[in-house]
Amino acid sequence: MSLSAVLVSAQSETQKTKASAAIRSVMDEQAVAWNKGDIDGFMKGYWNSEKLVFVSGDKVTCGWQQTLDNYKKSYTSKERMGTLTFSDLEINVLSKDAAVVLGSWSLERAGDHPHGKFTLTFRKLKEGWRIIIDHTS
Amino acid sequence: MSLSAVLVSAQSETQKTKASAAIRSVMDEQAVAWNKGDIDGFMKGYWNSEKLVFVSGDKVTCGWQQTLDNYKKSYTSKERMGTLTFSDLEINVLSKDAAVVLGSWSLERAGDHPHGKFTLTFRKLKEGWRIIIDHTS
Repeated sequence: MSLSAVLVSAQSETQKTKASAAIRSVMDEQAVAWNKGDIDGFMKGYWNSEKLVFVSGDKVTCGWQQTLDNYKKSYTSKERMGTLTFSDLEINVLSKDAAVVLGSWSLERAGDHPHGKFTLTFRKLKEGWRIIIDHTS
Repeated sequence: MSLSAVLVSAQSETQKTKASAAIRSVMDEQAVAWNKGDIDGFMKGYWNSEKLVFVSGDKVTCGWQQTLDNYKKSYTSKERMGTLTFSDLEINVLSKDAAVVLGSWSLERAGDHPHGKFTLTFRKLKEGWRIIIDHTS
């Protein structure tokens, strides 16, 4: 490798590390908001667009507002929301403005302990890294 | 927009169209292989790597060989494989070598009609566009 190739490669590794950290921070903020019972705060991690796509099992929801409405319908109290934990995060930075994150989610609630897997597609928008596609199962 | 910006943008649109067509063709070939009962042919759409990730519901499989083995265990005959159709494909080209595809899958079989949603992360590798992460539900 030439020196310039080494420098480009090092720069790109630094960029990837920065992107991963920024994405992790968006998700950390989501979990903090959720655990305060703040669904609006949680939704800040998502692209505020009618083109946001949310796939849960066999159901597809299009649009930020509809996704918010669904969350508010399903989680009507802080008790229903429980304590959210994201784990096993694997952040794949695909380009300077795109990434796919695999991981596990779980809710600790008084009565049960739902959990599952997700694949999140992130884009870096002018407002920061945001989820544009969420596939949860 | 300057003329050069217009040209770059037009070129990038052409690249996206080409990428979409190439990805669609990989998936078409997968369906053709599946419907001949050819699981090995179907698997050509996947990254042949131990880092391939396959998420199905709550289960995560790592690696091409393990994914192939799972398919062969679940689909022991052409009748079990049925007729696969991909539909509602939404191909999001994220960069010159990365894309995320949303869609629906269904199997027509004598006894049942399983179906669901998937999110596929594709990368353009030297061998062509390949699925590196499959999340199916």
